[in-house]
Amino acid sequence: MSAMDSQMKFWSSSARNAVPYTPGEQPKDRKFIKLNTNENPYGPSPRVLQLSTQDLHMNLYPEPTAYGLRKVIAEMNSFSPEEIFVGNGSDEVLAFAFGAFGDEDHPFSFPDITYSFYPVWSDFYHVSKQIFPLGEDFSFDLTLAPEDGGPLVIANPNAPTGIALPSEVLVNYLEAHPDRLMIVDEAYVDFGAESMVPYIRKFPNLLVVQTFSKSRALAGARLGFAFGQAQLIEAMNRIKDSFNSYTVSAFSQAAGIVSYQDSDYLAETSSRIIATRERAKAALKELGFAMTDSMANFLWVTHPQESGQFLYEALRERGILVRHFSNPALTEYLRITVGTDDEMDELICQLKNIRGINQ
Amino acid sequence: MSAMDSQMKFWSSSARNAVPYTPGEQPKDRKFIKLNTNENPYGPSPRVLQLSTQDLHMNLYPEPTAYGLRKVIAEMNSFSPEEIFVGNGSDEVLAFAFGAFGDEDHPFSFPDITYSFYPVWSDFYHVSKQIFPLGEDFSFDLTLAPEDGGPLVIANPNAPTGIALPSEVLVNYLEAHPDRLMIVDEAYVDFGAESMVPYIRKFPNLLVVQTFSKSRALAGARLGFAFGQAQLIEAMNRIKDSFNSYTVSAFSQAAGIVSYQDSDYLAETSSRIIATRERAKAALKELGFAMTDSMANFLWVTHPQESGQFLYEALRERGILVRHFSNPALTEYLRITVGTDDEMDELICQLKNIRGINQ
Repeated sequence: MSAMDSQMKFWSSSARNAVPYTPGEQPKDRKFIKLNTNENPYGPSPRVLQLSTQDLHMNLYPEPTAYGLRKVIAEMNSFSPEEIFVGNGSDEVLAFAFGAFGDEDHPFSFPDITYSFYPVWSDFYHVSKQIFPLGEDFSFDLTLAPEDGGPLVIANPNAPTGIALPSEVLVNYLEAHPDRLMIVDEAYVDFGAESMVPYIRKFPNLLVVQTFSKSRALAGARLGFAFGQAQLIEAMNRIKDSFNSYTVSAFSQAAGIVSYQDSDYLAETSSRIIATRERAKAALKELGFAMTDSMANFLWVTHPQESGQFLYEALRERGILVRHFSNPALTEYLRITVGTDDEMDELICQLKNIRGINQ
Repeated sequence: MSAMDSQMKFWSSSARNAVPYTPGEQPKDRKFIKLNTNENPYGPSPRVLQLSTQDLHMNLYPEPTAYGLRKVIAEMNSFSPEEIFVGNGSDEVLAFAFGAFGDEDHPFSFPDITYSFYPVWSDFYHVSKQIFPLGEDFSFDLTLAPEDGGPLVIANPNAPTGIALPSEVLVNYLEAHPDRLMIVDEAYVDFGAESMVPYIRKFPNLLVVQTFSKSRALAGARLGFAFGQAQLIEAMNRIKDSFNSYTVSAFSQAAGIVSYQDSDYLAETSSRIIATRERAKAALKELGFAMTDSMANFLWVTHPQESGQFLYEALRERGILVRHFSNPALTEYLRITVGTDDEMDELICQLKNIRGINQ
């Protein structure tokens, strides 16, 4: 037995059985145009870049509940801090929601095509799952959701399709299902979809999760948050506190505060991304691409003559990274992050080259 | 049924059963001398305070494995990055170790008096536990550990007692138990105890966990790390990647790099804390306190005439926070963080007042 083999004996059954997650490619060597992980090209509010680290008291443990940040988010939306939860990215916030509201007897329902972590968190927290199909052309059809069961989790806009449901549809569903908790994952909501935050007061069965990673361009800070009536937030605090003392870092809490306060910058940069997205949609349609009507900071496109795998590889050779999924239902599509106008022009230019179109 | 009651129906069994963790008091209103959470009064390396947030590319997701920081830690200790794990505080690193190396058939062994999170993580990862007693006067006696079983986790120095085992004792144990994994939690090692890091190469059954929170005064960054041979680290990566995409934030990775490189500052500030600790030990002994020979940045003291609860409350009234535990085996003791010389002088002064000693 070699020295390497000898250490496998220490692995737990979980470590042996774990299937590692494959995140979007983060290239280290070559300089690519990165349109593969839905990052925001404009960077965070200048107020974040002006933060002085000397004021952060880095030697002290961070405030465990991110009270200062919760207070700012609450006040700017006319809530109380007890109605806000803050975590290490919306991934952690959503994971806690699975733990707080799901178990073997309270299955989570979600579509078969949506954010790929929902089934992972279900398994992690031993939550049963009821997976329902999307409608045609990736559309959301809530009548396909099982009528019985526990929480319904909806990414709105959905990933990786970008399709958004109007708030009216979700409001009607909440009214018709007062005993079902609805969790709306609004990671991409600021790029043109309708937020459910204004309905928190009305519906005790509504939890809305948002992030600083996309519209606020703070993916590097790992910061997400949720809105819900106080007892929903309390359940999430119970899960967090029962095993998890790792709080959001002092710097990320401070960055979140100044970023959230700068709503002008959010509006301005989100508008630019929306304008670029609509311009890119038109240009891609001219090249023969079909696509969903994405309301996110990415496009979900397919070409009738070229395979998704081919286009992914051809773009990569030409210095542009986009996201391609191997799941058979998705493999003819590409998810393309909306970058700057210049980056999208380069994308269109390279796609014309690939398609052999004279320019 | 009130509106509040109506939301309890959404709580999972985990949320209902959760027993919230009570962290050390973090006062918001009154200005206290904080000697209750083992924070470092000298602050992090000046290089951390000089970091420019403009260089951090906050709009991008952080490097998921903290490669840059792992490389620095590896090179400064003659390891490879594959032998280093980085996480959100040593709490997260230790939690992953429970998940990576423990399960129902591989119980974790640890003393009955040690860091209070070990049983919490055992329960969270469904790891069986074998809890063994400390020897007299809180001393470590590894002959009391069960001979059979899975990993042994040892805080060295131990918390909340500060008692350290010499590395020779641990080396002998590792040699005698090649089929048992030993996890050494060295959160407080830089204040005078002997690290096991030099033995990583020799022992495939050794994992050493350290933190930036104490000696490097970066509690606000939530940053911890581990040393181990590559297959041990790989098991922890499997657990991390299987459910957890929340990586260490870009700022904390950058802060960790410049902090770890500044070993002169670490040595200088740790020496100051050690000198203050020894001075405080002598002064407390003069006041009649008994104590362990703490090698950490805290003292573990008891007084033959005054109860722990009384002293805790009397100090609090006088503006000084120390840590008091309600566990019956610990309740006559106080855990007092070693602050600055001035803070410890104030502590001694107030204890004299409490004891009615003329000054």
